[in-house]
Amino acid sequence: MSNEFHPPARILMGPGPSNVDPRVLLAMAKPMVGHLDPEFIRIMNNLQDLLRSIFNTKNSLTIPISGTGSAGMEAAFVNVVEPGDRVLVCINGVFGERMADVAERCGANLKTISAPWGKAFDLDVVQKELRAFQPKILAIVHAETSTGVLQPLEEFADLLQPYPETLLLVDTVTSLGGHPVKVDEWGIDICYSGTQKCLSCPPGLAPITFSSRAMEKIKNRSKKVQSWYLDMNMVGKYWGNERTYHHTAPISMNYALLEALRIISEEGQGPRHERHRRNHRALVQGIEAMGLKMPVEEPYRLWSLNAVGIPPGIDEVKLRKALLDEYNLEIGGGLGALKGKIWRVGLMGYSSTETNVLYFLTALEQTLRAQGFEVPKGAGVTAAKEFYSRANK
Amino acid sequence: MSNEFHPPARILMGPGPSNVDPRVLLAMAKPMVGHLDPEFIRIMNNLQDLLRSIFNTKNSLTIPISGTGSAGMEAAFVNVVEPGDRVLVCINGVFGERMADVAERCGANLKTISAPWGKAFDLDVVQKELRAFQPKILAIVHAETSTGVLQPLEEFADLLQPYPETLLLVDTVTSLGGHPVKVDEWGIDICYSGTQKCLSCPPGLAPITFSSRAMEKIKNRSKKVQSWYLDMNMVGKYWGNERTYHHTAPISMNYALLEALRIISEEGQGPRHERHRRNHRALVQGIEAMGLKMPVEEPYRLWSLNAVGIPPGIDEVKLRKALLDEYNLEIGGGLGALKGKIWRVGLMGYSSTETNVLYFLTALEQTLRAQGFEVPKGAGVTAAKEFYSRANK
Repeated sequence: MSNEFHPPARILMGPGPSNVDPRVLLAMAKPMVGHLDPEFIRIMNNLQDLLRSIFNTKNSLTIPISGTGSAGMEAAFVNVVEPGDRVLVCINGVFGERMADVAERCGANLKTISAPWGKAFDLDVVQKELRAFQPKILAIVHAETSTGVLQPLEEFADLLQPYPETLLLVDTVTSLGGHPVKVDEWGIDICYSGTQKCLSCPPGLAPITFSSRAMEKIKNRSKKVQSWYLDMNMVGKYWGNERTYHHTAPISMNYALLEALRIISEEGQGPRHERHRRNHRALVQGIEAMGLKMPVEEPYRLWSLNAVGIPPGIDEVKLRKALLDEYNLEIGGGLGALKGKIWRVGLMGYSSTETNVLYFLTALEQTLRAQGFEVPKGAGVTAAKEFYSRANK
Repeated sequence: MSNEFHPPARILMGPGPSNVDPRVLLAMAKPMVGHLDPEFIRIMNNLQDLLRSIFNTKNSLTIPISGTGSAGMEAAFVNVVEPGDRVLVCINGVFGERMADVAERCGANLKTISAPWGKAFDLDVVQKELRAFQPKILAIVHAETSTGVLQPLEEFADLLQPYPETLLLVDTVTSLGGHPVKVDEWGIDICYSGTQKCLSCPPGLAPITFSSRAMEKIKNRSKKVQSWYLDMNMVGKYWGNERTYHHTAPISMNYALLEALRIISEEGQGPRHERHRRNHRALVQGIEAMGLKMPVEEPYRLWSLNAVGIPPGIDEVKLRKALLDEYNLEIGGGLGALKGKIWRVGLMGYSSTETNVLYFLTALEQTLRAQGFEVPKGAGVTAAKEFYSRANK
């Protein structure tokens, strides 16, 4: 039939999805079972244990939302925000903006603070607004997929100490599985992610965790959660001891996530994060040796998503098309304010490999040169190779 | 590792998920591509064409929602209902009740009408309420998964003729792919379904279609859709000509749905519906020959989901457990008001086979007898076999 489909085996180095381990792809081909089958319930329990491990939390309400990362964002806000609640959203990219949009649709009394796109937030700025606004929710993005910026969160527990009424809501879509995410230690109350980035599972689920304080707020709402589908008062009962039917869980996607988390647990979080860091650093060596710039300042660079400055005179859309057509390689363009200014080069999960770094630098050199941009021959690959030699010693 | 998982190859004859064709399971193992990859866009186009075909509609906004059937229900309501809109919901089972709950969370001015669980709605009753209430939305379930009742919709276009302001919203979760669903002919404005029933695709997506009248209402809303994730003003642009990024589509699930729809298109809708009808009728012959009752009246019985009366004195939970443990066979219990009164026996999509009918009747006879219930030996299977002989002549 004409609609037969054979998707090409791309090298996925964009902002997600990342490549998926064949073990995970094949897990989805396992036999279908019912959503209340004792065997599926065993799978759910194992899945929750591994999610708690990757989030570094003891939170009982730790589950995969039956939707993609953005459904996780929505689940986070609709459950804890009641109309009129003061919500402070920190915006330094597209996903901060999205948070504000979602919070507004929940009827929040919304206040936003901004940092320049490509920069992290200064703690003092956040602290000042916290004091002035006394929000019920403080929302911030750990890993801004649109800019490649990592927001350090280590000091947020202390920052929020004087505000026991404030819940901390964090987006870790592009960090979970690539960078450390320490929900309990950092005092995060609501934390969500997506499966298709550093977890290297197909898109379709959104891991999320709620602290007991967040659960308390949800239980004591005066108005029903506006989303039936994402209402944790009900979803939580299906994933909790009651096992009450709410909606049919996406069985095969849950198989995939369990297998992806098993792989992570076999690798170990420490070695996995170190692998992400090493490949990121090799990429940076290569990029800089080619005379290109990494616009994000060093301590705030994501290991999983690298913002690379587009040199003047380059037709960046054409270059990405050449990478895809001639090198079977996907990278991302800039979003919003950074459109045309940066490329977004993902090194996430299964895609974060030495091979990919070297192949990307080679392909980038070739495609830049095809547009008449002078690149010292082999400089990128050589620099990355040298870095690996030193790093592997 | 101890959390290795090997789900058993169940025979799924419950209210869904149904068994999945290995072609569909393997489609999910195809290589991951990006959500804006030209090859994925080709897949999206083919998927939309086949969805239009199964819905029997020309609606351009015909897409899979990135969530399960209940997300489809939510997408239907949140988009077309604005706070204060009069919404009339017809309730004769759990899913009608769920519609009312969802509509209420959208701020609807809600009115409900009821028919007894296990019965379809009388047109006169609906007409009377339409006239009195003049709703913006009339919502009804085509195939009530909780009761096994089919609601005939052939006359709804005429019924709604005098009310050009009223949109018809229909749940076809358990009918699409098993019974004819004629969106354009029946005058349906918003129609959603799920993938894990008669489409025999894993749960995780919700096919939905909006008429141009429904799209008009969505475009002219005075207030933003309360769900960012399900906002058709944005989702529609990703699936429309613009291809604007909204959220990352669940790539592998979309592969699965495309393959499931390709299989349906190869079988043909007519032959597929006839297969569902034939296996349903064989099951009824068998059930009645065993001295059991089908509580739903004949013209209103779903072919895809059979309500079977539980005979007095039977421990129904124990019987279902025996079916699962000893026969590897899943059927459903009753929900809500019908808990303990009926079993729900699915014959959906890939699960609707002669083999499954005969195996179920055999297993049911054995498990009933194990509880001391007198069943004429082999009566069920014999009656079904005779029916198939006649039907295949």
